Amino acid sequence: MDAANFIAGDWGTSHLRLFLCGSQGNVLDSRQGPGVAESGGRFAGVLSSLTSQWRERGGDLPTVLCGMVGSNIGWSQAPYVPCPAKPEQIAEACVALKNGAVHIVPGLSCRNPFGAPDFLRGEETQILGALKLVASLGKGRRLLCLPGTHTKWVVLEDGLILHFLSAPTGELFALLRDHSVLVRSQADLGAEIDSQAFDAGLVRFAEHPEAQLVHRLFECRARQLSGELTPHAARGFLSGLLVAGDADGALRALAGAGPAHSVHLIGTPDLTRLYAAALSRRGCDVREVDGAAASLAGLAQVHGWLSERVAANES
Amino acid sequence: MDAANFIAGDWGTSHLRLFLCGSQGNVLDSRQGPGVAESGGRFAGVLSSLTSQWRERGGDLPTVLCGMVGSNIGWSQAPYVPCPAKPEQIAEACVALKNGAVHIVPGLSCRNPFGAPDFLRGEETQILGALKLVASLGKGRRLLCLPGTHTKWVVLEDGLILHFLSAPTGELFALLRDHSVLVRSQADLGAEIDSQAFDAGLVRFAEHPEAQLVHRLFECRARQLSGELTPHAARGFLSGLLVAGDADGALRALAGAGPAHSVHLIGTPDLTRLYAAALSRRGCDVREVDGAAASLAGLAQVHGWLSERVAANES
Repeated sequence: MDAANFIAGDWGTSHLRLFLCGSQGNVLDSRQGPGVAESGGRFAGVLSSLTSQWRERGGDLPTVLCGMVGSNIGWSQAPYVPCPAKPEQIAEACVALKNGAVHIVPGLSCRNPFGAPDFLRGEETQILGALKLVASLGKGRRLLCLPGTHTKWVVLEDGLILHFLSAPTGELFALLRDHSVLVRSQADLGAEIDSQAFDAGLVRFAEHPEAQLVHRLFECRARQLSGELTPHAARGFLSGLLVAGDADGALRALAGAGPAHSVHLIGTPDLTRLYAAALSRRGCDVREVDGAAASLAGLAQVHGWLSERVAANES
Repeated sequence: MDAANFIAGDWGTSHLRLFLCGSQGNVLDSRQGPGVAESGGRFAGVLSSLTSQWRERGGDLPTVLCGMVGSNIGWSQAPYVPCPAKPEQIAEACVALKNGAVHIVPGLSCRNPFGAPDFLRGEETQILGALKLVASLGKGRRLLCLPGTHTKWVVLEDGLILHFLSAPTGELFALLRDHSVLVRSQADLGAEIDSQAFDAGLVRFAEHPEAQLVHRLFECRARQLSGELTPHAARGFLSGLLVAGDADGALRALAGAGPAHSVHLIGTPDLTRLYAAALSRRGCDVREVDGAAASLAGLAQVHGWLSERVAANES
């Protein structure tokens, strides 16, 4: 068995995922734990108790954490690094705790293309990981999309993180699905998206891309009243409208006026698949990168840089 | 005291408002009762019990009802009248109950400017009332806005209701206010909109009207993270963004390319005021009409037409 080298942790609002990693970032073991919101402020205790077996075998191991653990509700605030940002700057701005045994990766801030302040935290590590996993991403101008509760669209230029744009598309969908009369149903419809209805939503969006989404949403209810959509299909249709609107608006805002674009999608496969469908329909070349793998690769990358820095200081 | 002539009722999902009216539609007395959703299917019973005193004094009076009472969750379905629709067609399509003692006003259906089926119910009566209250509305091409949970934008041509467009702007605002991390607050912030922050939202929207609203919403959270907005101000800012986006998109979709437009706003004063601010900022001439007064005038108008029809049949 490869010797344990470091511990990588993705500590979000609602979940903690810890990985015992070998020197190449390969996963030797893993643990799950409470998110930042459920840790009751006992971050050191939670980490210590979940990793006790690992420390018994391998002694104290350096630990790198990313996500909301570095926010104002987390263990220690890791201030946002302003864009444009080089990947190495993110590692340099890590906050060290416990005499350097634990490092927390900072988020990023920018002025987005609409001149508004914008922020991300956790996705910076996935970006670092994607740059590691997909070598070509570090060359030229690149567009990334990290779909989720708050989807992040990110522009890279020769590996430099130029700026990004947030869209609460996932949150909007969940709010409408769970609470709105537009698609509400008495029946338990499950989480599955009706892919045919989703595609119909993409097609319908594209018929009037100039419209505000707020003027398209009532269609989800109207097509139920007219008998064209079942409640389950209405949800898929809504998802298609929202994802198409997000993709269309982001491409217009971020990608310039080229006829076709290349977009790297980083996230859970069920989400990247939806965005891939929307972007492909717009003529984009799409590549999907698994979000969990990207997080882990990013944490390994940061650990590698931190180790080099320690080695350089000691030599 | 003017003799009681008819009973007018606005019976929505959550409220029933009944008015005892004189021959000119003047209100002699009023009652409030349970909405359609809370009436447990006992519509005749609820109506009878709330109007018993009136009937003791004035005998059986003809009753005209509008709103969700005519929907598939109501007393009796009053099928949607397709647009373009003349006001008189709405009266002709009323559904008669209890041997013609009770009439229910139907809603309207159309293909909206984006080619989607669209529906309204309750607002048709406010439109009839506005046409009665504002004589000039019946001439030429006119744009109405009825803000609410589902805002309705309506185009009239010489009194004919051409088509309309629904926007669930009020519902979106309420969902985001009550559930979204974008503007959520532990504190009870009250229902009051911060008017300065609302205006800031209008101004910010206008800087990038080409953007999808989904790419502007995260700004409500980002400007809290950056310390520029308090939680209370963030709500007002969100309201400004949503109302400006609704107004801008609707004007583009419905009003053609004129430099300035006249818009009649029909609704509760706290809502029409917000839309008036957004529309005025876009150079529109705005006139506000009280929504409750418009409902009552519309019910009186329908009662008048129904009485003429009865008189014509009897003569």
